[in-house]
Amino acid sequence: MNIKNKQFQFIVTLFLVIISSKINSQQIDYHSEKKIDSIISLLTLHEKVAMCHAQSKFSTPGVDRLGIPEIWMSDGPHGVRGEINWDDWGYANWTNDSITAFPALTCLAATFNPKLSKEYGISLGEEARYRKKDVLLGPGVNIYRTPLNGRNFEYMGEDPYLASKMVVPYIQGVQQNGVAACVKHFALNNQELWRNHINVEVSDRALYEIYLPAFKAAVIEGKVWSLMGAYNQFRGQHTTHNQILMNTILKEDWAFDGVVISDWGSTHNTNEAALNGLDIEMGTGTDGLTTSTKNTYDYYYLANPFLEKLKNNDVSEDVLNDKVRRILRLMFRTNMNPNRSFGRMNNQEHLDVARKIAAEGIVLLKNENSFFPINPSKKITIAVIGENATKSMTIGGGSSELKAKKEISPLQGLKNKYKNATILYGLGYASGPSAYGRVIPSTLDADKLKNEAVALASKADVVLFFGGLNKNHQQDCEGGDRQEFELPFGQNELLNELLKVNNNVGVLLVSGNAVEIPWLDNVKALMQTWYLGSETGNAIADVISGDVNPSGKLPFSFPKKLNDNAAHSFGKLSYPGDSINQYYKEDILVGYRWHDTKKIKPLFAFGEGKSYTTFKLSDFKTDKKEYAQNETITISGNVINTGEIDGAEVVQVYVGKSKSKVKRALKELKGFQKVTVLKGGTESVEILINTNDLSFYDESISNWNLEKGDYLIYVGNASNNISKEIKITIK
Amino acid sequence: MNIKNKQFQFIVTLFLVIISSKINSQQIDYHSEKKIDSIISLLTLHEKVAMCHAQSKFSTPGVDRLGIPEIWMSDGPHGVRGEINWDDWGYANWTNDSITAFPALTCLAATFNPKLSKEYGISLGEEARYRKKDVLLGPGVNIYRTPLNGRNFEYMGEDPYLASKMVVPYIQGVQQNGVAACVKHFALNNQELWRNHINVEVSDRALYEIYLPAFKAAVIEGKVWSLMGAYNQFRGQHTTHNQILMNTILKEDWAFDGVVISDWGSTHNTNEAALNGLDIEMGTGTDGLTTSTKNTYDYYYLANPFLEKLKNNDVSEDVLNDKVRRILRLMFRTNMNPNRSFGRMNNQEHLDVARKIAAEGIVLLKNENSFFPINPSKKITIAVIGENATKSMTIGGGSSELKAKKEISPLQGLKNKYKNATILYGLGYASGPSAYGRVIPSTLDADKLKNEAVALASKADVVLFFGGLNKNHQQDCEGGDRQEFELPFGQNELLNELLKVNNNVGVLLVSGNAVEIPWLDNVKALMQTWYLGSETGNAIADVISGDVNPSGKLPFSFPKKLNDNAAHSFGKLSYPGDSINQYYKEDILVGYRWHDTKKIKPLFAFGEGKSYTTFKLSDFKTDKKEYAQNETITISGNVINTGEIDGAEVVQVYVGKSKSKVKRALKELKGFQKVTVLKGGTESVEILINTNDLSFYDESISNWNLEKGDYLIYVGNASNNISKEIKITIK
Repeated sequence: MNIKNKQFQFIVTLFLVIISSKINSQQIDYHSEKKIDSIISLLTLHEKVAMCHAQSKFSTPGVDRLGIPEIWMSDGPHGVRGEINWDDWGYANWTNDSITAFPALTCLAATFNPKLSKEYGISLGEEARYRKKDVLLGPGVNIYRTPLNGRNFEYMGEDPYLASKMVVPYIQGVQQNGVAACVKHFALNNQELWRNHINVEVSDRALYEIYLPAFKAAVIEGKVWSLMGAYNQFRGQHTTHNQILMNTILKEDWAFDGVVISDWGSTHNTNEAALNGLDIEMGTGTDGLTTSTKNTYDYYYLANPFLEKLKNNDVSEDVLNDKVRRILRLMFRTNMNPNRSFGRMNNQEHLDVARKIAAEGIVLLKNENSFFPINPSKKITIAVIGENATKSMTIGGGSSELKAKKEISPLQGLKNKYKNATILYGLGYASGPSAYGRVIPSTLDADKLKNEAVALASKADVVLFFGGLNKNHQQDCEGGDRQEFELPFGQNELLNELLKVNNNVGVLLVSGNAVEIPWLDNVKALMQTWYLGSETGNAIADVISGDVNPSGKLPFSFPKKLNDNAAHSFGKLSYPGDSINQYYKEDILVGYRWHDTKKIKPLFAFGEGKSYTTFKLSDFKTDKKEYAQNETITISGNVINTGEIDGAEVVQVYVGKSKSKVKRALKELKGFQKVTVLKGGTESVEILINTNDLSFYDESISNWNLEKGDYLIYVGNASNNISKEIKITIK
Repeated sequence: MNIKNKQFQFIVTLFLVIISSKINSQQIDYHSEKKIDSIISLLTLHEKVAMCHAQSKFSTPGVDRLGIPEIWMSDGPHGVRGEINWDDWGYANWTNDSITAFPALTCLAATFNPKLSKEYGISLGEEARYRKKDVLLGPGVNIYRTPLNGRNFEYMGEDPYLASKMVVPYIQGVQQNGVAACVKHFALNNQELWRNHINVEVSDRALYEIYLPAFKAAVIEGKVWSLMGAYNQFRGQHTTHNQILMNTILKEDWAFDGVVISDWGSTHNTNEAALNGLDIEMGTGTDGLTTSTKNTYDYYYLANPFLEKLKNNDVSEDVLNDKVRRILRLMFRTNMNPNRSFGRMNNQEHLDVARKIAAEGIVLLKNENSFFPINPSKKITIAVIGENATKSMTIGGGSSELKAKKEISPLQGLKNKYKNATILYGLGYASGPSAYGRVIPSTLDADKLKNEAVALASKADVVLFFGGLNKNHQQDCEGGDRQEFELPFGQNELLNELLKVNNNVGVLLVSGNAVEIPWLDNVKALMQTWYLGSETGNAIADVISGDVNPSGKLPFSFPKKLNDNAAHSFGKLSYPGDSINQYYKEDILVGYRWHDTKKIKPLFAFGEGKSYTTFKLSDFKTDKKEYAQNETITISGNVINTGEIDGAEVVQVYVGKSKSKVKRALKELKGFQKVTVLKGGTESVEILINTNDLSFYDESISNWNLEKGDYLIYVGNASNNISKEIKITIK
């Protein structure tokens, strides 16, 4: 059955390729498919099996006698990771692997600017190519379900539409360098706790409407060349070799023609790995089957055990050939493509892209009495307080850790910009040096740091507090979830002390997750600054100074308290589960869908973000009142910059249906456009929505269903700031 | 002066390139030169200096911001060496770096077959390319001056003409893969003892006539893209940055347009390195200037010290630009050439080439009563005796050490071939496991091994003794010379004992050097089998069995005793010198030139080698009696196979001049041709010599001088077996 699907799919693919070969630009693919067939016929069973599993931490073997190259992969989504040893997790200590660190994907998502995502992808792909990597292990598009997930900072927020629109250009950008992107982690890997085994139970509807769309966009629109399986289970089967996810959805429904790569050590069963769509097994251990005297990799599920099954005809060689065909296809797109560029790295253009995205992703959340921008020409005293003003955030965090050639700290960025000001710096708190095991300074040390900071704050005209999370274990870090919603390391207490001596405090929140913000009313301003990579400090100073007018929008909601988050409202079986299973009881009501529908106001809403200027959305309307299936709804209107400085606004279009045969979110994002408007100016905006995209996933027919009747279109600049509602009807 | 030479040379090169650009195939070069100019204009001083020295053990940096790639190099001439750690000499323990081991270059030279040299180069280049190497550190063409030199096995023998003819196709073969060959070690690195500092004093005539021709052929005919400087000094200056060798001869006279690379640690002076033609400094230490806290490579002579001189205008930036231009030119030929292939490795074709060359390079030196071939169908008992029947010869030897994917030992090769025979094996002697420090078994152990071997020999119909040298320190190994001419490890005594119990003994001599052979009269047969790489045992069995009829010829003389060798006849100041200086007192009379001229009969002569059949050279004549300058002498004749089996013979043409204003060697090799002749058949042979090649280097005019008058042309199948002498006259 599986085999027939594969064969059918291959015939379909070949057919499509033959059709498209009449278009000149597609002829290479046609020739490649023919070459692939002839190559497969030359390979031995052993050679083909060897291609399906690792030979080292980050490479798979080629076929040396035929000149078929190895495949070299690298973490991770924010930059090309430092070289790792051949066969252990130590860094190789090479000196040629320092790179440009790009902002975390949460920041990219916050730009709401797909053009920047393309620039991100192109730049990162160029760096991967220069480093001779064939597969870049990113981007990540797991949906932000809980603010405790240690890996949210690597993903693109809580909304499937936003993630879909942002992931596609990233992939296209990376791949135009002849480097495969590898979209991950497919699927439902939405927490780090128990990630290796936790079984996710979720409805088909939530799966299709919330957790899969960004992957689908990556495959269908982004034409991604590889995809990574996740660690967790789904409906009792590991996702990396999950019949439903990999075979039915990915390879059959979406006709994915690329390579499925396991996460490192996410494979658990040879039969399933062979038959359920996994193409390459990567990893660390093999469940105790390793020996010290033999090649560990021979014991991988897709190594000798797979070979045995093939020899015994327990698994058809067609299954193997399909995997090898996909791997060779990836090679023709990457390391066997003679036309790919040489790449480049650490160039000024990449730093410029990193800085632009960093500045455009920063979200201004509060700005009482125009606390920001702070004029750099002023001769004032600024007290910069907080460990995050100086701590490297490219180090730590797990596999996305980077060896940045340059990393400007916030403090350095401010010093670069504020030449006329007196800048004082106090650590205020310390999280300890270790990335593993959360180290809190002793009471004595903590008091000393706090007192020093308070003394500085008392002398300053302005206090800028750089707090938030960091990349330590159980903060924003792979391999563990956060243990609490509140800020760690005594920051709340410290802030309260600072506020006692200086009421002119602005907070810069460095994190990839929402945190509890009990002191919001007492601070003058708040900015969400993410993890920004090489140009962190310069980008922050650009926004603080007003050289860049902030235009970032939150890609996820900040609940007031943890239980206001949907996943957490349903108790431990929903998050984190009972260590065996977890149940996504909130179903489709993730993020703002939950807050909106349940009327639970968030502290900050999805899509929210201020500017130093003001905008008015005016004259928004649809082109018609009634639409048919598969028809385009055109929403148009004007954005007027009513303030004194140039700026950019994100027009957001949500759609809701109050009367439906199923429960519906109040509204769902279906379109957005970022537009730059000069001060006093007006720009027209046009947003297109296909009516089919208003469908819900109907479990009764296991398909998408476009209900007829009335829909409400909401136009605004945040999910909680809708300036226009328009009723339309689907006939 | 130097600079002007460079500029002049560049103008000449550009002019030639512009001329040749009218030929379509040359247009890439023309465009490359223009691109190189534009690239250089973009580079900072620091970036350019960085390109001139190592960043790791085997790589130099590119310019990452511009996408200019790194250059990756690998030892060595007989195969692509295993991966070395980034910054120490340990092996990286990767599992993807096992390769095909090709026969040592002495064996290649012994084939007297340039076509095989081309196949060698192509195959090796393909392996280097698959391993992603841009520069392959070989071939070596230092002249065989003394049989004690530990590194002779990596070179091409004692004759400059033979080495010239063999080195060119090797280079062309390697480079057609887009991998640079790196001919080495330039020049006069003819012993390992004191190699780092010994100063060689040699006449201009010997330099030009004996030690340089193979390098000149590599540059002018082979168009080699890189060249390696040597460790030793010449006329008081290190060869790696020697004004005469690098500037005057290589870059000015020969118009070399490639890259001069230091040997690892052979650079000793920044000013000389900058001004005397070195382009890239590679190595290990920097004479105590290293610190543990800073990047060692910054302290290389061509790193920070060079940068300082450039900044202070002590050295002109034009000097730097010339080096960078050469490096970029090498890149356009290698890693920036998008048309180069992917390479391949460990394929059957490469093994076939290795086996063919190995078998064709084996030299049959004695064969009493047709001891060889031994018919594989015979049901006989063969006693195989000697450590070299089983010892790996790809391990050890220094930088040419290899990680062979396959290495068939002589014993295994015989077992593969002699299915009907009873094969007994006795170690006989043992050299100990260590590559450093010569370990001789204790008397007790030695006696035990000897007695076991003698017992086996007494039971056998045939004894095959595999002895010789090995790759241990102070045998055939880089970094030290042999300590004596006689066979080590008690082999002579062992052989005498074996001969007492069995008079049917054939000896297989495994070495890259001549050895003393006191038992020659007592053994039935002797074969020189070199170091043969992956197919060692199969190739030896091919020749022993008669599946291959031997056709190898000695590329160097075997003196009867050490002092019969020219270098050794003049005492210690000639070899090894007084540790400061050495004097090449034998001058041009190296190898057979010495034996011939001084009438000191060697044990085996240059060009000597038997076949299982017999040949007659007949009707050899020149096309004319008198010739002018720069005219071709055509020597033609027939080779008749007068025996019972097919075979190949090497017709060798030597030329001598008895009356000359300078001392002359009796004769010098000026042409050869290998020809296969079926049993009973006749093949015609035509050998062409340009009369200019009969010139001697006239020190009185510092140029080549073609003397008029009578010359004798000697035609034979060995330097000591001339069957025809023909007198010609140069008008």
